[in-house]
Amino acid sequence: MGVAVGIDTGFDRKPSLDALNDIVDGDLRAVNALILERMQSPVPMIPQLAGHVVAAGGKRLRPMLTLAAARLCGYAGPRHVGLATCVEFIHTATLLHDDVVDDSSLRRGLASANTLFGNKPSVLVGDFLFSRAFELMVEDGSLEVLAILSRASSIIAEGEVMQLVTTSDIETTEEAYLNVIRAKTAHLFAAACRIGAIVADRPRSEADALEAYGMNLGIAFQLIDDVLDYSAKQATLGKTIGDDFREGKMTLPIVLALRRGDEAEHAFWRRTVEALEQTPEDLHQAIAILKNRRALVDTVEQARGYGQEAALALGAFPDGPVKQALLDVVEFCVDRAY
Amino acid sequence: MGVAVGIDTGFDRKPSLDALNDIVDGDLRAVNALILERMQSPVPMIPQLAGHVVAAGGKRLRPMLTLAAARLCGYAGPRHVGLATCVEFIHTATLLHDDVVDDSSLRRGLASANTLFGNKPSVLVGDFLFSRAFELMVEDGSLEVLAILSRASSIIAEGEVMQLVTTSDIETTEEAYLNVIRAKTAHLFAAACRIGAIVADRPRSEADALEAYGMNLGIAFQLIDDVLDYSAKQATLGKTIGDDFREGKMTLPIVLALRRGDEAEHAFWRRTVEALEQTPEDLHQAIAILKNRRALVDTVEQARGYGQEAALALGAFPDGPVKQALLDVVEFCVDRAY
Repeated sequence: MGVAVGIDTGFDRKPSLDALNDIVDGDLRAVNALILERMQSPVPMIPQLAGHVVAAGGKRLRPMLTLAAARLCGYAGPRHVGLATCVEFIHTATLLHDDVVDDSSLRRGLASANTLFGNKPSVLVGDFLFSRAFELMVEDGSLEVLAILSRASSIIAEGEVMQLVTTSDIETTEEAYLNVIRAKTAHLFAAACRIGAIVADRPRSEADALEAYGMNLGIAFQLIDDVLDYSAKQATLGKTIGDDFREGKMTLPIVLALRRGDEAEHAFWRRTVEALEQTPEDLHQAIAILKNRRALVDTVEQARGYGQEAALALGAFPDGPVKQALLDVVEFCVDRAY
Repeated sequence: MGVAVGIDTGFDRKPSLDALNDIVDGDLRAVNALILERMQSPVPMIPQLAGHVVAAGGKRLRPMLTLAAARLCGYAGPRHVGLATCVEFIHTATLLHDDVVDDSSLRRGLASANTLFGNKPSVLVGDFLFSRAFELMVEDGSLEVLAILSRASSIIAEGEVMQLVTTSDIETTEEAYLNVIRAKTAHLFAAACRIGAIVADRPRSEADALEAYGMNLGIAFQLIDDVLDYSAKQATLGKTIGDDFREGKMTLPIVLALRRGDEAEHAFWRRTVEALEQTPEDLHQAIAILKNRRALVDTVEQARGYGQEAALALGAFPDGPVKQALLDVVEFCVDRAY
């Protein structure tokens, strides 16, 4: 199965989202049009601010998962477009609320909506998009979808609070960390995939399989995201690194390094992550320790394991271009680390 | 009708929520129990923070409206308890998000959740309660209720953003102000009342009538709230006054005073509300101008007018203790000003 996912054959071709993009292309354009249409409001600041986040929104990975999951289930109607839009609105609202800060000196990046517009407008526009997501779901009319996405939303909020509580807590266990990322990231991936089976009116076993795919993919995705925050490759691409470190976020690389570190390293993490007393050189030192303790490669290794679980979850679906595209997504998410 | 509402006969007895409290008593205790039950989470900070707001939550006016409206419509089932809880969760989430600030020096009061826990936990717990509201609605299973409350939620967010945009804008018109309070306050009152008719499966005309009652009551309620922020009576009760003034919030009293003021007064409002350059004596001066320009009494007069509209909207319902209690609510809301 590992070979089927292609994770071990990365030398053949560069893993990408291309196959997925090709398959959902028309649907994704419909999603983008619906996003633009439904973020409108007579209050001009709302589309202005929302447009800022939506434009910066990147890959649209979550709505693409809904679209592809529906396709994998043989769905041929139009409802998946609206539901994929709901998923993206919930994700966007989460981003806006995740960027809220209590101390403006901690704001990362220069172009976040919160930096440009302030905390409060970002929170309120997040609320607007979140409400719009539910309005769209109501128009769709499926109580099952509403149940899945309202549950995912409250779990995301729980995950974000858990993350806040574990921040700077160097006692955070691997299990606690996994609970955080399962809640804050993987549940929405899982819900996005599951509703693909729901619109297609497929049996529960297929919905469960797609949910398991999404959950494991989401965990792998977040693990790699957490590795990339310490990645030299990211830095050479001009992306910021070290945000998690500066905020004292307890991600798996640090959890592993703490477990394996000596007294001097413990003192380093206590000062930098627990007490947040950092000098500009500390990030460099942190990366050196993470490498030396194999914390980054082992986090990637864990991501690879979850990726394989994701691929296995699709086992019962017939082979074909949609399934292959979903397997490519796994490969892409894990191989981003290189 | 004015007499029926009792607004002009306030010398007979002190208007209060007592009759409403008596009628919904058992139901309201069920709502309070459900609030406590459904704000629980394995993440301890969530019930801690939510409990802080819920305990300080005051009158529970909005859920009481849902309970009483359902009773007025002859509803005898249990669903109104869950829906009243949804309404209160949405209101609580709004309070938490409304208290988010961009400059901690502007924080009002000492005991707000944001002051005690920080902006970010308040935002995330607001999100949790908001999601919980939708989970509860899904359990109830009425797409019509979901439509009403998801629409109300996005309108509240629009109203909050509108309020942000009009802050310190001394050109704000009376119409713009009324649009703000209709959206940020009155729509949830209207929705809370309407769903009373929906659970009772009453004809559309009754749902519309209850919605009109709630909308007008909500406007009256907010108008009086805005007057009370400049009220000496509030000050003698130990409540803070002047919050709106210090934040540069454009409420009707200031809109009216600006329209009626001379050049010296315009200069005063430009300095204090537009530029937010205030000395401790300015609030006293602001109140003197508002009184002199009859801005407070005329705002109360407008509230009284909306209150009468609210009472009129109940015309088609049979007289009885529930209707009288809802008329008392109007009286109570307006007479708070004295």
